[in-house]
Amino acid sequence: MEIKVLKSILTTNERLAEENRDFFKRNSIKVFNIMASPGAGKTSLLLKLIGALKKETEIFVIEGDTASTIDADRISSADVGVIQINTGNGCHLDAGMIGSSVAELGVRPGSFIFIENVGNLICPSEFDLGEAYKVVIASVPEGDDKPYKYLSMYRAADIVILNKMDLLPYVDFSIPTFVSGIRALNEKAPVYEVSCKTGAGLDVLASWFKSLK
Amino acid sequence: MEIKVLKSILTTNERLAEENRDFFKRNSIKVFNIMASPGAGKTSLLLKLIGALKKETEIFVIEGDTASTIDADRISSADVGVIQINTGNGCHLDAGMIGSSVAELGVRPGSFIFIENVGNLICPSEFDLGEAYKVVIASVPEGDDKPYKYLSMYRAADIVILNKMDLLPYVDFSIPTFVSGIRALNEKAPVYEVSCKTGAGLDVLASWFKSLK
Repeated sequence: MEIKVLKSILTTNERLAEENRDFFKRNSIKVFNIMASPGAGKTSLLLKLIGALKKETEIFVIEGDTASTIDADRISSADVGVIQINTGNGCHLDAGMIGSSVAELGVRPGSFIFIENVGNLICPSEFDLGEAYKVVIASVPEGDDKPYKYLSMYRAADIVILNKMDLLPYVDFSIPTFVSGIRALNEKAPVYEVSCKTGAGLDVLASWFKSLK
Repeated sequence: MEIKVLKSILTTNERLAEENRDFFKRNSIKVFNIMASPGAGKTSLLLKLIGALKKETEIFVIEGDTASTIDADRISSADVGVIQINTGNGCHLDAGMIGSSVAELGVRPGSFIFIENVGNLICPSEFDLGEAYKVVIASVPEGDDKPYKYLSMYRAADIVILNKMDLLPYVDFSIPTFVSGIRALNEKAPVYEVSCKTGAGLDVLASWFKSLK
């Protein structure tokens, strides 16, 4: 009698991520999973990107945090659909949370979804949400050594955004050291230097997102 | 016949943490578990504290990171016993790792051990290492909203150190907002404002550590 073998069974998260990915593809929805340390400027950058993109594209935002609605409150001022997920002590979002949020938000075909993951450079990199792009935001005051310490995160990145460039004169940060660290892990991800405070680099960054339409 | 009931069985980590705590107590070893976001300045601050304390007290350092020996290399320049733990994708140190490291380092009675936990504001707060003090380092460019988002971390803190005060003129950060967030969770932890760059506040901070001898 033939013995049946089930190969490479997906975890629940992987299965739900595939469901999300199918749904996004069928509806031409572009999804960005934004990951960073706490305080790298994810929400500020999102507000700038929404301002630059929302004329051409409908935007929805899913905010992840262990507690509070601080970020969703800030995003709602930009007049886009937003939902806050509080993970308690959970250090990352998962695909099930994203599926429920997308249903709740009533996301329309052709739109962009920005997912602001929980502030953390470790756990979020291991959980597929069904997104098309993993966006890693670093910030100058965090130091240029982060790609040497958080390998999975920088390996997984489809794009790296280096924020708070306005603080460069006041801290010890070598851009060549930072970029070499990324390149040792990741040959392809473009690195954009920006400052949400001065606005430097934001137009060029927005053009990358526009190019994906 | 009497039925035996085992109550409140400790997890492996809790049991090992208790063993560590007993060992530290019997040997008058003071242990500090230093937790922060990536890039808050844990290693820089440690180097300053070592400089201020090592004349009076023998110091050992346990460095936790997902990868690399960057931090242990920096600490070893200060001529103290140091060991690096690489956790791979693990987002925190645990009590077993500390027990092994202490044995490996040959820590002597009466010394201080500084444990630099993995850069992360979530997972490390949930794992008891057997330490006497949980030290949370925040930094000005991370923003004043962190105590509102990372509740367990700020609730657990025995002391909060606000680093990178030299960047205050260049970012939006309200000290009263930051401190109110801490006080909503934690009535007792002292909050020290310092700058590793300018040296401001470091003497006062060092005197807190000296007071524990």
